[in-house]
Amino acid sequence: MRVFYSPDHLRHDPKSFIFRGKVVDSPEKPERAEVLLKALSAAGHRIETPKQHGTAAVEAVHDAGYLAFLKDGYRAWQGLPGASAEIVPNVHPGRNMATLRAHPVAQAGWYVADTACPVGEGTWMGALAAVDCALSATEAVVAGERAAYGLCRPPGHHAYADQAGGFCLLNNVAVAAEVAARAKGRVAILDVDVHHGNGTQGIFWRRPDVLFVSLHADPAVYYPFYAGYAEETGADAGAGATFNLPLPPGTGDDAYLSALSRALDRIRAFQPEVLLISLGFDAAADDPLGVLKISTEGFRRIAVAIEALGLPAILIQEGGYLAASLGPNAVAFLSAFER
Amino acid sequence: MRVFYSPDHLRHDPKSFIFRGKVVDSPEKPERAEVLLKALSAAGHRIETPKQHGTAAVEAVHDAGYLAFLKDGYRAWQGLPGASAEIVPNVHPGRNMATLRAHPVAQAGWYVADTACPVGEGTWMGALAAVDCALSATEAVVAGERAAYGLCRPPGHHAYADQAGGFCLLNNVAVAAEVAARAKGRVAILDVDVHHGNGTQGIFWRRPDVLFVSLHADPAVYYPFYAGYAEETGADAGAGATFNLPLPPGTGDDAYLSALSRALDRIRAFQPEVLLISLGFDAAADDPLGVLKISTEGFRRIAVAIEALGLPAILIQEGGYLAASLGPNAVAFLSAFER
Repeated sequence: MRVFYSPDHLRHDPKSFIFRGKVVDSPEKPERAEVLLKALSAAGHRIETPKQHGTAAVEAVHDAGYLAFLKDGYRAWQGLPGASAEIVPNVHPGRNMATLRAHPVAQAGWYVADTACPVGEGTWMGALAAVDCALSATEAVVAGERAAYGLCRPPGHHAYADQAGGFCLLNNVAVAAEVAARAKGRVAILDVDVHHGNGTQGIFWRRPDVLFVSLHADPAVYYPFYAGYAEETGADAGAGATFNLPLPPGTGDDAYLSALSRALDRIRAFQPEVLLISLGFDAAADDPLGVLKISTEGFRRIAVAIEALGLPAILIQEGGYLAASLGPNAVAFLSAFER
Repeated sequence: MRVFYSPDHLRHDPKSFIFRGKVVDSPEKPERAEVLLKALSAAGHRIETPKQHGTAAVEAVHDAGYLAFLKDGYRAWQGLPGASAEIVPNVHPGRNMATLRAHPVAQAGWYVADTACPVGEGTWMGALAAVDCALSATEAVVAGERAAYGLCRPPGHHAYADQAGGFCLLNNVAVAAEVAARAKGRVAILDVDVHHGNGTQGIFWRRPDVLFVSLHADPAVYYPFYAGYAEETGADAGAGATFNLPLPPGTGDDAYLSALSRALDRIRAFQPEVLLISLGFDAAADDPLGVLKISTEGFRRIAVAIEALGLPAILIQEGGYLAASLGPNAVAFLSAFER
């Protein structure tokens, strides 16, 4: 399969993550992409550098003020006496306040929902490089490839049109889906990352032409906590075009595949022209953040079932943290599209 | 003046504060109340222990789910593997998500707007003790005293009906204002803390019988950033009953007193039965968090001007951090009501 990888992801190298009240190292490490690259290269996939796409496709999905913050916020933050090396929000408008001005602390808390996505000097260029990978994979599929893979890092599916969250800055799969929808018509996004793709859901919440389907650990006990419930099904013209399948912690291969068959039925019924896959490997049994129990053979079976839809498929890397199974799981998944 | 002080404030002893991306000591230290107590005692004020009021008055102002979180959240948080010693939020629902479940991390980010108000084992009892001080001062004034002072700690004016923020858990002045309004009719709240009293404003936003007037450093460049602007004037039946006077950083005594005269004109026109004063001393020139330049003589002049309204006055302690002027400023302010 054509694999799009950009070394520019290394420019985004977040250091801190506040977890349960303690400052810890960020698990969204650059090494994640290097592990995936090495494993896929060794498995014979064709590694390509994406072309640079500029910002037009990103602007079609994201809020202009948010993009200005991602691009220029770091410099403003550095002008604050005593500021940390990367932007970490500490005050938030919450549900009771609604005025945004230019102060760097106000911008940080407005545009960043949590402490998992520090913005550093290279974040904007790193995030754009991830979008480039997603867009080059999309162009390959729009041009006729059966499947292509964007080795995107940082991930994207928690990013809303106007807010970062959960290691995600720009929503790679949403930007790709918008481009694919404009080129081909109806598209479906299937999110198999262990976390609910709340940002993607939010971006397409009112859209009838983009089906969003997500399998994920139950948000009642897991990030993102405030979204991803089965009763969320879209609104307005998009009513019914969101489908969430929350799974209990501990879910293994067989129960996952059973839920997946419901997801695939929904996708078939939608009759999309193209499928986008938000491809996290953090449902793996040994993932350090995960709570599901998917094996490498499980990831292969999941991919085989998805491939059997017969749809052109754009694979977009989401989460999946440093674990022994990370490379093998990616190889197993992509192999199903190489038959 | 009768001064209500409870040693139970010591039960709330927050340790951490994330400021511009770095974990620092909380400046909202128990010593603040001890400094005020010592200075006022030495100046001859009568120190009294408040009576315990239970939770009915608090329940009249605050959301039931929020109160349950303050009361029981700490135990649930302690059940999380690897959790910190006090509750510090790290994920927030923001403007894009709206479902709350019971998980401790979800509760923390829903009910706490920023990283300045950690909830520890003694927070609930400490916050209730502050409310007791406010309520005993209120009862003294309702019963006929010219003025009384609640030496409240933790402070309260940033706390919304359903959310903590800015060192504040329970909104002492709002609870007191509600009791005073029920007993006497129309009341006015004058907030002279250096920070906008966003929580108090939110609680009475739609109320025609409670005037909220605040002088504070311009939120465009200062906490709470997202509220406190001059264009915020209340809504529905409360339209016109909110009056904000943001002041430029560096404002000194004379410019402050000039703005104060506008605030007092508004209060006179409202014709309240009782005045509540959200009394922060963090506008002091030497306050470690403050950005205004009020002198001790300035605080005396401010108090003299307020006293000249001739209204029964309930003084509720808000902010003001450890600084050489803290005790003298409190003594100077209270002296104006002792003529």
